[in-house]
Amino acid sequence: MYPKSLQKLIDNLRLLPGVGVKTAERYAFTVLDLNDEEGAEFISAIINARTNIHQCKICGNLAEDDECVICKDQSRDKDIICVVQQPKDIIAMERIQDYRGVYHVLNGAIATAKGIMPEDLNIKSLLNRVDKSTKEIIVATNPTLEGETTALYLAKLLSEKDVNVTRIAHGLPMGGHLDYADELTLSKAMENRQKIK
Amino acid sequence: MYPKSLQKLIDNLRLLPGVGVKTAERYAFTVLDLNDEEGAEFISAIINARTNIHQCKICGNLAEDDECVICKDQSRDKDIICVVQQPKDIIAMERIQDYRGVYHVLNGAIATAKGIMPEDLNIKSLLNRVDKSTKEIIVATNPTLEGETTALYLAKLLSEKDVNVTRIAHGLPMGGHLDYADELTLSKAMENRQKIK
Repeated sequence: MYPKSLQKLIDNLRLLPGVGVKTAERYAFTVLDLNDEEGAEFISAIINARTNIHQCKICGNLAEDDECVICKDQSRDKDIICVVQQPKDIIAMERIQDYRGVYHVLNGAIATAKGIMPEDLNIKSLLNRVDKSTKEIIVATNPTLEGETTALYLAKLLSEKDVNVTRIAHGLPMGGHLDYADELTLSKAMENRQKIK
Repeated sequence: MYPKSLQKLIDNLRLLPGVGVKTAERYAFTVLDLNDEEGAEFISAIINARTNIHQCKICGNLAEDDECVICKDQSRDKDIICVVQQPKDIIAMERIQDYRGVYHVLNGAIATAKGIMPEDLNIKSLLNRVDKSTKEIIVATNPTLEGETTALYLAKLLSEKDVNVTRIAHGLPMGGHLDYADELTLSKAMENRQKIK
């Protein structure tokens, strides 16, 4: 029903996460309705981002220069490294605002079933960053099978380095309800219970 | 916090309807994660659609050639013209599948408050399409103040042409509940009540 190039635009917009036919149609009409200036800027924003953004040499975070804004920031404590799976996890962590250490992006997690092995991740560069001055490695991989496997693997690997390795806590999410929590989360919440101060 | 070109991409993705910061961020990461082939196709889909799509010479619908697919379709009844505000209204109408006439896109509705006057709409080209063979003009503008004003305006204009002008029905939406309906819809539904056959 649609002209071919409009249909193709709709199909491509469906690549965006959670976008179905109806939403893609609405997006496509919006893209068509942009004026010349807006349209040119929209297109160049996509092209520029895809061209300019690459991995930070040090931590693997997204960066435009050799180093990302966090690694370049002199006020951050380089001796505390928080290990995450994806660059977007850094954005999530940065929202809590009181973390002043730096990050290391693995770009995934060990998933033997999917053929993702330790050597496919940015682990070697993490080991190279760890030295005597390193105070703590906080492993903030996801609380999933893959994330847990990766956390244990890293802990074992780093035990040789004589560095303090910690894992972010698991438990009930704030604002969550007990009866909606899955068994694993609940058992973790019980296991990690703490004295009320 | 984000590299500049990523922030720019996020800002641009927020131009899409209903897209807030979080969604734009997720979209931006997806756009960055596309492989070279997907990325090139995504970009060219936007460029091609914006370049190739223009208005059908006859009805104002979106088209890649001079005429849109509906105007080109010989099986459609050219003597019944359904008048809509936007090209996307045609898509909505086409979903009901049993309409076999053609369309005319006004590209808006009369809105004196916003300075949109009859001469800003594709009304002249509609008048040019109407001739002795025209059986019916179905005015399917939106049931809003602007849409109603436009419908009345068209009815008056076309009354000189001795053509049958109809308006799509207003009433309760199917699956809707009486107690959720607004007063205007309810009064229209009462006014247009029909004998149960």
